[in-house]
Amino acid sequence: MIRWIPMLFYLCFIGIFCKENAVILILCRNREADELSVTLDNFEKTFNSMYKYPYVFLNDEDFTDEFKNKVREVISTEAVFGKLEAHEWGYPKWVDKQKADKKRNDLEKTGIIYAGSESYRHMCRFFSGFFYRNKYIAKYDYYWRIEPGVKFFCKMNYDPFEFMRKQNREYGFIINLHEFMETIPTLWDATIEFTTKHKNIIPNQRVLKEILDDNKNYNGCHFWSNFEIASFNFFRSELYQKYFDFLDRKGGFYYERWGDAPIHSLAASIFLGKEKMHFFDDIGYEHWPFQHCPKSPSRLKDCNCNPTNSIDDGPWSCLKEFIREDL
Amino acid sequence: MIRWIPMLFYLCFIGIFCKENAVILILCRNREADELSVTLDNFEKTFNSMYKYPYVFLNDEDFTDEFKNKVREVISTEAVFGKLEAHEWGYPKWVDKQKADKKRNDLEKTGIIYAGSESYRHMCRFFSGFFYRNKYIAKYDYYWRIEPGVKFFCKMNYDPFEFMRKQNREYGFIINLHEFMETIPTLWDATIEFTTKHKNIIPNQRVLKEILDDNKNYNGCHFWSNFEIASFNFFRSELYQKYFDFLDRKGGFYYERWGDAPIHSLAASIFLGKEKMHFFDDIGYEHWPFQHCPKSPSRLKDCNCNPTNSIDDGPWSCLKEFIREDL
Repeated sequence: MIRWIPMLFYLCFIGIFCKENAVILILCRNREADELSVTLDNFEKTFNSMYKYPYVFLNDEDFTDEFKNKVREVISTEAVFGKLEAHEWGYPKWVDKQKADKKRNDLEKTGIIYAGSESYRHMCRFFSGFFYRNKYIAKYDYYWRIEPGVKFFCKMNYDPFEFMRKQNREYGFIINLHEFMETIPTLWDATIEFTTKHKNIIPNQRVLKEILDDNKNYNGCHFWSNFEIASFNFFRSELYQKYFDFLDRKGGFYYERWGDAPIHSLAASIFLGKEKMHFFDDIGYEHWPFQHCPKSPSRLKDCNCNPTNSIDDGPWSCLKEFIREDL
Repeated sequence: MIRWIPMLFYLCFIGIFCKENAVILILCRNREADELSVTLDNFEKTFNSMYKYPYVFLNDEDFTDEFKNKVREVISTEAVFGKLEAHEWGYPKWVDKQKADKKRNDLEKTGIIYAGSESYRHMCRFFSGFFYRNKYIAKYDYYWRIEPGVKFFCKMNYDPFEFMRKQNREYGFIINLHEFMETIPTLWDATIEFTTKHKNIIPNQRVLKEILDDNKNYNGCHFWSNFEIASFNFFRSELYQKYFDFLDRKGGFYYERWGDAPIHSLAASIFLGKEKMHFFDDIGYEHWPFQHCPKSPSRLKDCNCNPTNSIDDGPWSCLKEFIREDL
């Protein structure tokens, strides 16, 4: 049996049976078990039953046995069910909770989705500054983020983690759209303040044009982070960590409703540059109410969707801005 | 046996075993048999052994038995070997041959490819105004144009003719690049003269921006017509026929070196509009010295090429201009 180990390394070396050091990352609640089972069943059938990556499920409470059993019924690989630590979910000590309550109530009047939700804000803060250093996650290099309720339309025929590594990409997305600017009124100013203060440690000062409006302010274009295939390396960098700490001190996660999506997008657009990003055009994906379905006829053969339902050509999408960047 | 016929129609109706009324069109010479055999063997393996479309081979001379036998050895479907008619290959009566000789010799001094070739000019005129009404071709609705020596890198998994029909596309291309402007000094002026004179019969006066430079002159961007998957319907229209006749009277095929590629491209860009064109991104293709190889990792699994060799991102390509059109 021992003899097989060097053999497997050799196969890995020539590109066969070579799994990446990657994880399927899911933050969810016990009450989402049924919805998640449907998503995982679909995810297994389109990808993971062939490629066999492990799962880490995270929750701000302990997962129930019922949840674990339901999930284990549909997945084909090992799973860890972890509870977040206190510092990963909740207000940092410098946030004024009374002010946060007032601001939250004010925003709720706009009717914007999750405007009045406290837990949504904890979630955004967790996915901005803590997920990549969570103790169950620390050993991995890449992740695929999934949420209960999402759908994948196309059968995968390659390993996207291997693609990311070989192509030296660090941030992969599918849906790219405009943010509700009322949720991030001071995020851009804070970002400019940070980049000005730390310009000596930012490798490439070129901000992607795709995130700028005609007045060189942030236009709200962001990669929808409910799907991400990305490298932890990017988030674990000193630069990103400083950026998060800087933003966190501002309290905008609570006084406004800063999303992890615009924060990841600003960081990727300013720190990484387009050559390290990837638009996963060939993954059909839906997070209600938006979906992306590949247009290519050769790809569509393996998909269960209709490209006319894609967000891509509609007014919400920023895909054109992203493509235009290179032209 | 008779009973099967309605059954096959039914299957066609629901989209299975439904072949289009299409042909593989190849203009070539007896001496190209060996080079063509390699191309056809590759074309059969990547497409036609599965999809079974008939061939029409055309030549300005009679095909030899040796040629026919070599070709028949590698193809899987019926083939017609036709000789062009006199009016399809050669000078029209209004062209001044002495002037043509002088102009040809002048252009040859530039060193541009085929600048001094008479038969290349006949070929360009044939593919501008005669191929779609050739007697062996007249019964078909769609064609795939192939030349000896080209290579296809990817295994097809769908029928591109069916795609064209269902998506209502009339002109499909792969490689899009800049023309040697010395070969078409008066083509744009002639085209403007034609469109001005016939503006009442041109359905959509919007010229695609992708073919215009900053001064609104033709920038030379053209679809490389050695590959085409297109509808004969477009070329057989009254409008296109008038356009060809108008250009033909100018004598530019012989006094200059007007290519069928810029002519098809101008016609498609002015008469069709982008919504009736299609970039076959998923077909890997080489006509020396340029190639296109799909970038999409899911498509690349079925291709034998490297996207870094694609012309697409290089200075010769006009693909960016084509993509920018929509943005």
